[in-house]
Amino acid sequence: MWKQTRLTELLGIELPIIQAGMAGGITTPELVAAVSNAGGLGSLGAGYMDPDEMQTVIKSIKQKTHKPFAVNVFVPGKISSTSTQIDASNKLLQPYLKELGIQESSGEIKHVFEQQLEKIIEEHVQVCSFTFGLPPKEWINKLKANDIKLIGTATTVEEAILNEEAGMDAIVAQGYEAGGHRGTFNGSFQKSMIGTMSLVPQVVDKVSIPVVAAGGIMDARGLLASMMLGAQGIQMGTAFVTSKESSAKHQHKQAILTSSEDATVMTSAFSGKTARGIDNLFIKDMAPYEHSLPDYPIQNSLTKEIRKTAAIQQKPQYMSLWSGQSPRLSREDRAEDILSAMVTEADSILTSYSPPF
Amino acid sequence: MWKQTRLTELLGIELPIIQAGMAGGITTPELVAAVSNAGGLGSLGAGYMDPDEMQTVIKSIKQKTHKPFAVNVFVPGKISSTSTQIDASNKLLQPYLKELGIQESSGEIKHVFEQQLEKIIEEHVQVCSFTFGLPPKEWINKLKANDIKLIGTATTVEEAILNEEAGMDAIVAQGYEAGGHRGTFNGSFQKSMIGTMSLVPQVVDKVSIPVVAAGGIMDARGLLASMMLGAQGIQMGTAFVTSKESSAKHQHKQAILTSSEDATVMTSAFSGKTARGIDNLFIKDMAPYEHSLPDYPIQNSLTKEIRKTAAIQQKPQYMSLWSGQSPRLSREDRAEDILSAMVTEADSILTSYSPPF
Repeated sequence: MWKQTRLTELLGIELPIIQAGMAGGITTPELVAAVSNAGGLGSLGAGYMDPDEMQTVIKSIKQKTHKPFAVNVFVPGKISSTSTQIDASNKLLQPYLKELGIQESSGEIKHVFEQQLEKIIEEHVQVCSFTFGLPPKEWINKLKANDIKLIGTATTVEEAILNEEAGMDAIVAQGYEAGGHRGTFNGSFQKSMIGTMSLVPQVVDKVSIPVVAAGGIMDARGLLASMMLGAQGIQMGTAFVTSKESSAKHQHKQAILTSSEDATVMTSAFSGKTARGIDNLFIKDMAPYEHSLPDYPIQNSLTKEIRKTAAIQQKPQYMSLWSGQSPRLSREDRAEDILSAMVTEADSILTSYSPPF
Repeated sequence: MWKQTRLTELLGIELPIIQAGMAGGITTPELVAAVSNAGGLGSLGAGYMDPDEMQTVIKSIKQKTHKPFAVNVFVPGKISSTSTQIDASNKLLQPYLKELGIQESSGEIKHVFEQQLEKIIEEHVQVCSFTFGLPPKEWINKLKANDIKLIGTATTVEEAILNEEAGMDAIVAQGYEAGGHRGTFNGSFQKSMIGTMSLVPQVVDKVSIPVVAAGGIMDARGLLASMMLGAQGIQMGTAFVTSKESSAKHQHKQAILTSSEDATVMTSAFSGKTARGIDNLFIKDMAPYEHSLPDYPIQNSLTKEIRKTAAIQQKPQYMSLWSGQSPRLSREDRAEDILSAMVTEADSILTSYSPPF
């Protein structure tokens, strides 16, 4: 039996482990439910989802677990890209479209945020987590009035303070090591690249709500290290990308499973927003143009068909192979086994560590 | 009483805490001796030192402590800078020389490495640590034959393996958060920016010698976190820059004490080698030219008078304000008190954490 933390009590879970709400269809109902059934907090990565589709998936998760789970949504930001920028990006992407045999690429953006929140309330989802910013005050109040716990994302101390001031119940402190998109919303991406070892204690010192450590954590060692830094729990993304229940593409899973700590880079080429993934040809090709690409989510829409078709054609050189900096610690296992192995290992580390003085 | 680790047994110390051998005169005999007398391992940062001067300082340390201490030296690398590059850099630096009233700047390089190692053997220094690479095999053998323990530096798993293969007794795994110079010697700096949370467990899994965690660690939380990641000890630099015994310039100490987690950047403008410091005017001014600057240590020599004179004239905008990413955790205290506070706090964290399951 794990000792309760303020985080596990807050969320009504047993293990202080959150599966990150990775968007793009990685977080199947099976994955979310498996993590929650094993005592952690599964999260549906609903960032890009149509609200009705999201509701269907939420219903499916509920059929598979009676435990709490989270839905992760993206807070919309300002888009200031010009049509010249969009045209220029479209032009840059033409060779990839041609090679992959794609007819057309659409930069269309659907605004889904408020409708997603309505569905989350309608479905009595227990936890709603936010990436890329803070929701408007009226929505925070509405969600809280419906007894939904709110988790924000911070990449700096300042962002953590803003999250607490806005009324979040907990914060994910996302370190530099983390795979996928940076949650940065208040300041430059460059200034917000703070390693997990530095970020967590400095955030813990400045907020009173529970802090969840994220970035590079993939096993019991990372879990215990995070707790020692003052975190009340951890969030893991990459560790679950390679799980049996994840619907990450085969090439993506294989890339992580065979990768090393020095293989990832930060890129905004896929989406217009900075994210960490395994370096490949597309990232290298686009690197010189990163500063001029259209904002997220326009660039994301523009590259959508490329990523999708590249996966079907098994061309990982054009796929977004999101990964944190600890891929050597990845394993292809059931989510339940990943979690139970962590508990067993954590137990064993602490036993051999007692008394340390 | 602290539990012994393989590292503390190896080095004959009580606390698994190494004070980093920061060059440039920060590590006074008082600091090195204070850390060793308090049970840790003090280190003289001898990187740039004249061998005779170094010997005098070693003798002074020995008068202040009978405990083991280390001397840190820089392994010389290849220098491939052209005279055109050196001239161009000299030209770029002219405005700073003028503003600070400096007559001349010298790019002169003294080769001191082997003479330093001779003195280290002559003085029976207990521990020799290396930065920027691996010493030649014959020197490793010679030092070991004199019963000197050797500590190498690694910023990737590959570099850690090379250190073990070369015969090092322990390795400092230097994470991305670390202040000052990157120890990278086998591969690009860009690919070797691995966060401490990711680097330590992945290194621990691939070597059998003790691993010392470094980067962002400044208090008991970082110490315990590192131990949980599998490290046998930690190395702290920034935490000791602000100590009473450090001879870091007043402006440098104040910059760290008032800084935040997002204030540092990586720069090669001061020395020709990538290092982390608090962002300032000189770094910003030189950023566009970083790719064309002469190699370390030429650029280091070229900027030496600028840094020295800027300190005298109290102009931190031209000084190298090395710092890791955890400056909010810094404190202006005696080294002994920094260490004893860590032990007390570590004890208290672990007590409140037992039993955690």
